[in-house]
Amino acid sequence: MRRDRVQALLEDVATGRLPVDAALAQLDDAPVDELGFATVDTHRALRQGFPEVVFGQGKLPEQTVAIGERLAAHGDGFLVTRADAATQAALLARWPTIELNAVARTAWLPGAQAVTRVGKPAAVVTAGTSDLPVAEEAAETLRAFGHGVLRVTDVGVAGIHRILAKRETLHGAGVVIVVAGMDGALPSVVGGLVRVPVIAVPTSVGYGAAFAGLAPLLTMLNSCAAGVTVCNIDNGFGAAVAASRILAD
Amino acid sequence: MRRDRVQALLEDVATGRLPVDAALAQLDDAPVDELGFATVDTHRALRQGFPEVVFGQGKLPEQTVAIGERLAAHGDGFLVTRADAATQAALLARWPTIELNAVARTAWLPGAQAVTRVGKPAAVVTAGTSDLPVAEEAAETLRAFGHGVLRVTDVGVAGIHRILAKRETLHGAGVVIVVAGMDGALPSVVGGLVRVPVIAVPTSVGYGAAFAGLAPLLTMLNSCAAGVTVCNIDNGFGAAVAASRILAD
Amino acid sequence: MRRDRVQALLEDVATGRLPVDAALAQLDDAPVDELGFATVDTHRALRQGFPEVVFGQGKLPEQTVAIGERLAAHGDGFLVTRADAATQAALLARWPTIELNAVARTAWLPGAQAVTRVGKPAAVVTAGTSDLPVAEEAAETLRAFGHGVLRVTDVGVAGIHRILAKRETLHGAGVVIVVAGMDGALPSVVGGLVRVPVIAVPTSVGYGAAFAGLAPLLTMLNSCAAGVTVCNIDNGFGAAVAASRILAD
Amino acid sequence: MRRDRVQALLEDVATGRLPVDAALAQLDDAPVDELGFATVDTHRALRQGFPEVVFGQGKLPEQTVAIGERLAAHGDGFLVTRADAATQAALLARWPTIELNAVARTAWLPGAQAVTRVGKPAAVVTAGTSDLPVAEEAAETLRAFGHGVLRVTDVGVAGIHRILAKRETLHGAGVVIVVAGMDGALPSVVGGLVRVPVIAVPTSVGYGAAFAGLAPLLTMLNSCAAGVTVCNIDNGFGAAVAASRILAD
Amino acid sequence: MRRDRVQALLEDVATGRLPVDAALAQLDDAPVDELGFATVDTHRALRQGFPEVVFGQGKLPEQTVAIGERLAAHGDGFLVTRADAATQAALLARWPTIELNAVARTAWLPGAQAVTRVGKPAAVVTAGTSDLPVAEEAAETLRAFGHGVLRVTDVGVAGIHRILAKRETLHGAGVVIVVAGMDGALPSVVGGLVRVPVIAVPTSVGYGAAFAGLAPLLTMLNSCAAGVTVCNIDNGFGAAVAASRILAD
Amino acid sequence: MRRDRVQALLEDVATGRLPVDAALAQLDDAPVDELGFATVDTHRALRQGFPEVVFGQGKLPEQTVAIGERLAAHGDGFLVTRADAATQAALLARWPTIELNAVARTAWLPGAQAVTRVGKPAAVVTAGTSDLPVAEEAAETLRAFGHGVLRVTDVGVAGIHRILAKRETLHGAGVVIVVAGMDGALPSVVGGLVRVPVIAVPTSVGYGAAFAGLAPLLTMLNSCAAGVTVCNIDNGFGAAVAASRILAD
Amino acid sequence: MRRDRVQALLEDVATGRLPVDAALAQLDDAPVDELGFATVDTHRALRQGFPEVVFGQGKLPEQTVAIGERLAAHGDGFLVTRADAATQAALLARWPTIELNAVARTAWLPGAQAVTRVGKPAAVVTAGTSDLPVAEEAAETLRAFGHGVLRVTDVGVAGIHRILAKRETLHGAGVVIVVAGMDGALPSVVGGLVRVPVIAVPTSVGYGAAFAGLAPLLTMLNSCAAGVTVCNIDNGFGAAVAASRILAD
Amino acid sequence: MRRDRVQALLEDVATGRLPVDAALAQLDDAPVDELGFATVDTHRALRQGFPEVVFGQGKLPEQTVAIGERLAAHGDGFLVTRADAATQAALLARWPTIELNAVARTAWLPGAQAVTRVGKPAAVVTAGTSDLPVAEEAAETLRAFGHGVLRVTDVGVAGIHRILAKRETLHGAGVVIVVAGMDGALPSVVGGLVRVPVIAVPTSVGYGAAFAGLAPLLTMLNSCAAGVTVCNIDNGFGAAVAASRILAD
Repeated sequence: MRRDRVQALLEDVATGRLPVDAALAQLDDAPVDELGFATVDTHRALRQGFPEVVFGQGKLPEQTVAIGERLAAHGDGFLVTRADAATQAALLARWPTIELNAVARTAWLPGAQAVTRVGKPAAVVTAGTSDLPVAEEAAETLRAFGHGVLRVTDVGVAGIHRILAKRETLHGAGVVIVVAGMDGALPSVVGGLVRVPVIAVPTSVGYGAAFAGLAPLLTMLNSCAAGVTVCNIDNGFGAAVAASRILAD
Repeated sequence: MRRDRVQALLEDVATGRLPVDAALAQLDDAPVDELGFATVDTHRALRQGFPEVVFGQGKLPEQTVAIGERLAAHGDGFLVTRADAATQAALLARWPTIELNAVARTAWLPGAQAVTRVGKPAAVVTAGTSDLPVAEEAAETLRAFGHGVLRVTDVGVAGIHRILAKRETLHGAGVVIVVAGMDGALPSVVGGLVRVPVIAVPTSVGYGAAFAGLAPLLTMLNSCAAGVTVCNIDNGFGAAVAASRILAD
Repeated sequence: MRRDRVQALLEDVATGRLPVDAALAQLDDAPVDELGFATVDTHRALRQGFPEVVFGQGKLPEQTVAIGERLAAHGDGFLVTRADAATQAALLARWPTIELNAVARTAWLPGAQAVTRVGKPAAVVTAGTSDLPVAEEAAETLRAFGHGVLRVTDVGVAGIHRILAKRETLHGAGVVIVVAGMDGALPSVVGGLVRVPVIAVPTSVGYGAAFAGLAPLLTMLNSCAAGVTVCNIDNGFGAAVAASRILAD
Repeated sequence: MRRDRVQALLEDVATGRLPVDAALAQLDDAPVDELGFATVDTHRALRQGFPEVVFGQGKLPEQTVAIGERLAAHGDGFLVTRADAATQAALLARWPTIELNAVARTAWLPGAQAVTRVGKPAAVVTAGTSDLPVAEEAAETLRAFGHGVLRVTDVGVAGIHRILAKRETLHGAGVVIVVAGMDGALPSVVGGLVRVPVIAVPTSVGYGAAFAGLAPLLTMLNSCAAGVTVCNIDNGFGAAVAASRILAD
Repeated sequence: MRRDRVQALLEDVATGRLPVDAALAQLDDAPVDELGFATVDTHRALRQGFPEVVFGQGKLPEQTVAIGERLAAHGDGFLVTRADAATQAALLARWPTIELNAVARTAWLPGAQAVTRVGKPAAVVTAGTSDLPVAEEAAETLRAFGHGVLRVTDVGVAGIHRILAKRETLHGAGVVIVVAGMDGALPSVVGGLVRVPVIAVPTSVGYGAAFAGLAPLLTMLNSCAAGVTVCNIDNGFGAAVAASRILAD
Repeated sequence: MRRDRVQALLEDVATGRLPVDAALAQLDDAPVDELGFATVDTHRALRQGFPEVVFGQGKLPEQTVAIGERLAAHGDGFLVTRADAATQAALLARWPTIELNAVARTAWLPGAQAVTRVGKPAAVVTAGTSDLPVAEEAAETLRAFGHGVLRVTDVGVAGIHRILAKRETLHGAGVVIVVAGMDGALPSVVGGLVRVPVIAVPTSVGYGAAFAGLAPLLTMLNSCAAGVTVCNIDNGFGAAVAASRILAD
Repeated sequence: MRRDRVQALLEDVATGRLPVDAALAQLDDAPVDELGFATVDTHRALRQGFPEVVFGQGKLPEQTVAIGERLAAHGDGFLVTRADAATQAALLARWPTIELNAVARTAWLPGAQAVTRVGKPAAVVTAGTSDLPVAEEAAETLRAFGHGVLRVTDVGVAGIHRILAKRETLHGAGVVIVVAGMDGALPSVVGGLVRVPVIAVPTSVGYGAAFAGLAPLLTMLNSCAAGVTVCNIDNGFGAAVAASRILAD
Repeated sequence: MRRDRVQALLEDVATGRLPVDAALAQLDDAPVDELGFATVDTHRALRQGFPEVVFGQGKLPEQTVAIGERLAAHGDGFLVTRADAATQAALLARWPTIELNAVARTAWLPGAQAVTRVGKPAAVVTAGTSDLPVAEEAAETLRAFGHGVLRVTDVGVAGIHRILAKRETLHGAGVVIVVAGMDGALPSVVGGLVRVPVIAVPTSVGYGAAFAGLAPLLTMLNSCAAGVTVCNIDNGFGAAVAASRILAD
């Protein structure tokens, strides 16, 4: 029951148009969401100009375009993740100004009003080049949510000088997302180098005993650098949302 | 090589007391940590009055006391986690003012200078009463790090009204730690109720197919509320450090 | 030995046409199923007009049609599950009145006599839209078995108000099937909202660490709502049969 | 906000003691559970004389007694599960009429008013004698919830005639709980023999590759008898609650 | 219904004492086991003087003795497996002539009539000395079942000459049981050396990644020597029964 | 060193053509296989007219044909397992009399001399029709090895009367191979019905939580019928070789 | 900061061109890798004429060729691993003298200066022919790194005489790489035959319960031959690098 | 047949005392190990003064002492691993000069002749102090085998400067053993810093999701530093033997 409907009900009671018993019965049965409950996502989109996010995987290109039509009509813009080449082509044909990222498999149509944020940027760090699709998904999501992104690429721990050389960059970030497959060791090193929150994302990259991301997932959960938290395998989008929660706070 | 030693070396070169070649050789061989590298923990302890943390598990009471002696000598205070009853007793005998928490299995000796923080508190939420030891470990760690703590207890999703009734409390927190065993479903609900970062901690509580925490761990990694991140099983301390990284930022 | 053959044998003994020894030998050797053993399914189909069920996966379209021919000859109708597009097309070409459900991948040819049931309907609840194929398989199976179906869609716990808003619908059901992938948390919430039996079905939907349904399977087995029982991953058909056992009782 | 408080508020509005705006604000902020939300368990206990259930594992005997004191004060009686010998002794010392079951590890103090049910009983079937503790926990829970119980013991499939000989007993039940460790094969056979709901409970009984109940758990989830549903390993209590949901419906 | 009762029934029909309908009804309801079903074990014990087998694990010494009393009363003797020291002592106190094997954790009371078999013996081969308890359980079971046993001990493949030196012994066996922990490699080598059936038994012996027998279990299931079959981890008794089935055939 | 070469060497020593030292050196260095070592398979093929077996999976049709050419040249015939349609077609084009089995994916070219065996046949039992490819691979292998085969099909335990009705057939076999996917429960029932060896073969048939055969594999390893042994998932060939070892003994 | 730049800085301090404070600041900020850190690989390539290695999997043929262009420009040559047929063809079209190995899926363009090594060769041993792709990847990598390679093929332990016959070959190697799928038993036997280091490589070859290499991986980690170490599943390249580290030392 | 017996046999043939046929028969039957086969361990012990190694776990103190008596009689000395406090006390009482290491749980009685080696030492590196028991087992084994040991302790990657500061020490080693629990990330960093062989040993140290060493085991198998090989969990002894194979070569 929306607030205006509750107000109307109360006014009916105040004016005697509605007996107390009848009003009580109506309130008793009111579905919870009519009392003002709302999910974070919707509220944030409304208040902050966040784009809606569409998970493209498992959807036909025309389905994704149709959802986009509906969202674009509100002027908020939208972000599509896990958009394959066909979906990206269909989106581009419909919205020539949509911004595609082939590596990230994303498409972003900015909303009518630009989102501007004043906080620190997020750093997105990858251990190897094959971790890039996941990292780019995180970076594009952050960008669509209005955050600055610092990319640090191919700094796996087997050549430890590479990440050490990027310490200055890391120190400029408000949160660090570390994306790594295989041994998943990079977040532990980064967690020891910076004081800001570190979000680790395992990827399904690697030889047999990586077991499609299980190995780096376990590595990251057991990080010897205290305070590292972990997202699902290949979940660049989730890491970006977690980072946005931190930066927006 | 510490900064003051490098300064001395450069002054020797400037005054001709040390030839360029000899200075070069010294710099060449300098162990990395003498060039200014330092772990986060040490720096934070020095600058911010953080207590040192001792992992009590696997240590004899007298060993933990001995470590405590060394730390207390610097006036910084210290926190012991995973301290069993014997260890707690030994610590209390030595430092009568030490603050023990039997559920959390912690002991905290505050430092000479009180740590005061101005930011928002952290909320620590538990699904069931058997999750309390892990939640209390997180709460005590946060307290020792100078953060305020809001406790929300026994609000598992099987009685969904319980967590809904605590929304106001959650909205006052800068970060929410959610501790749950069994189905580990609570972080998904909390993640949908609040906009701040949510850190999920699985516990090893539950019947057989919980597999010592594997079930809630997987649940949390697959949370349908975007942006929930996960710590290791039973790792209340790690969750608190992650929360402190967020709050301190 | 069918009942009529045993009766004939006994009559032969009674009339002296068959000596006791010979009758004893025949009974001694009688294959068990000839003594009246029969599976539930066959009996129910015979007595209650239930359609036979054909598992379409791994069968060629022409094989499924051939089996359908045989079943339709008895006038009982039949249900095909896991029927891909080619199989659905082949069935439609043969029986133009067959009822296809593309999402559920089912085809249902009602029997000559309509099955009518007087009991409560079953509710089929899904956490997300990608759980629909499994949920629809359950719903179509229930419909073919003569039960009413209440569909509640896309009410995952990350927006907890959504399921709360559907409580009235749930309270009208005699059993609730809850279909969820990813974190599989929805059955725990539903189990706390209703008093009727709750059957949880994990789906193979989700990012890497869902491990093809293992994560929601474990979540559901560890549900903190007592009395939730669990079916195999993606097994909408099995959940419907379990629900039918409950409703029919 | 409880119903009586909402009624008072509405009456204040009707009489003009409370302006519409103020009433609206109060309703807006009302914690959800004050609007009449309540968990199933509490309601059932209040309305139906169900005993409260205490999970004794991990609690000290005196803690369990203390909880019992509080519950017994309401006259409802209570059931303790996972009560070890010491806890059983402590309960018996306090309540000499409490009913103990050493195999089930339960203690039941019936409430002031006897719970009587008119429906069919539940059958509790075990494959081997080492499955008895789990089966007895289910049976005692059912008894405390007011249901009749038919026990069928030691009818594992290696001697298939044993379960076949009990078909008549099974046909008298409204629901069948099948408890089995090792190969967990019994529920598949029972599922084919009866038409009522079958709830399978794996136990942690068996040699190495049973992996503490994983083997029978997987067996049961993959039962070739359609419509068998599964509970957590060793969770006799959960199976009984599921059965009670079915019988009570 | 036993054969004699069926005969009586038929005679009653033949003489007109029992109408056909009444006889039909009785046959219709006859529990299966009354029609002559019986488990292998009982029949073999009756016909062949096999001892009954009692699984001692989880039983109190006095319980095992009580079961033994009942079995010994029939004169058949019995075998106890998984009998700990206390159980062995209690059995010895009651039956001074009982044969104990401390390594195998067995106790064997031979029956009144000696079982003599004319077939080939079984070989029981172990990779290392820590596999002996499982191997001895197999050997004692075979002995109690009347089979000859050839022991080949400590011939793991890291010293491949050891098993090669025993080929003559192996060639004298009718079946070979190979017991191995750690890498579980021995059955593959033995399978290539002999033409008789090879039964592999993994043991829970080994460092961490043996995972309590999982490693040798998988090794043996994947044996590159075709025709090796596998028993459960540490299940020396099961291997012996399988061997007895082969030898007795 | 082959036996004839050793004989020649000894004769050289006896006649003084070779000094003792030189002979000793030659023997010392002799590769082991030259002393008469040989694998079982080769010996059996030579002595008993067994066909060679070619594992067709992963081989190109022309590669399999080429291997066949070489084997056929010796007149022994050969069996190809895991032969896909293309391989079967290529083999048929080359040897028009080769015997193909599309379900088993086998091709058998009998040797010049027929293998005749006098022993009992093997029974090959399947739980469901989707287990047939594995069962047929076993049956064709047994046939090629000269054994009789009794097929018992589609007798899963959910309709327990089906396997009971086939007891007479089972009792005629010298060994029983039981092939089952999903719950893998059938071998436990069969193991209780027959006294001969039972070899269980899990198949990768089933819904999600069958985990590609893991579920029935664990079921079978934990069979409550003592003396059931287990082969690798889908390994019909291995089961047949194990059965042949038993029958041939 | 490279050594020459540090030297220049020191000289500027010595001559007074740079004040101590300014020099200190420069040194303080110097990225670590400018102080002389460098990865092993780069150094070895520079000093020893090692070819660079390109991981071809997941790269388009034209991408791999483009990388090759850049490497070949330095005259060092390069090795491509995991190169499929299309990539091999593209490489051959560009560099007609490139050396392709279809089984190993490698392509090797030797550098301008031949690498010659004086040490012992490495032995690469395979259990079965389906392990050859992994073994050949190891062999080609060793060859490209300048090591001699002794190939020992198809010597699985089911025919134990085969590996015994190759002992002389093994004794000539400085390190032995053993490649095996299925039961993975061969390294244990080899580890007992030779005194040099043994590197075990599990392959993803085998029936179902090999679980894509998990079975031989666990076997090898649990080898009863002390001192066997293990590489990732199918990682022939990694084994070769490990062997090169040993031989080069 | 030992070499001297073969020599005698040949001499008998040469002198005519033994006919060729009889000699042939004897050689034909000679067990393999009598022809000169011998395991590496025995030979190395004989030739090189290596101590024998006794695995103390699962042995009573008096059993270990008894084995020691036998070994000490040969003057070779011996090493006991996994010796608990009681075993160490018993060994010390018998051999007052035995060298105990409480952390490593080892006892070493040097042989009569000192083993001296001229090669490089091995480095044993630990990530944390709780990895010390495994590292010390490796170090003591290396020492007993005559190798020098460089210890580098507590250099986990969360404080990356710690291992970087020890590069000089690492460069002096001929092989590096890296012992780490939790995230197991250290070997990847070390593998990138040194060119010599790196042997990684996972330990069972860590919170829940370390799963008793599974997490660091997988991390190490997936190391992004090529050429790192892995030992079993907690197997410091095995790592030392592998290192000794490398150093001794």
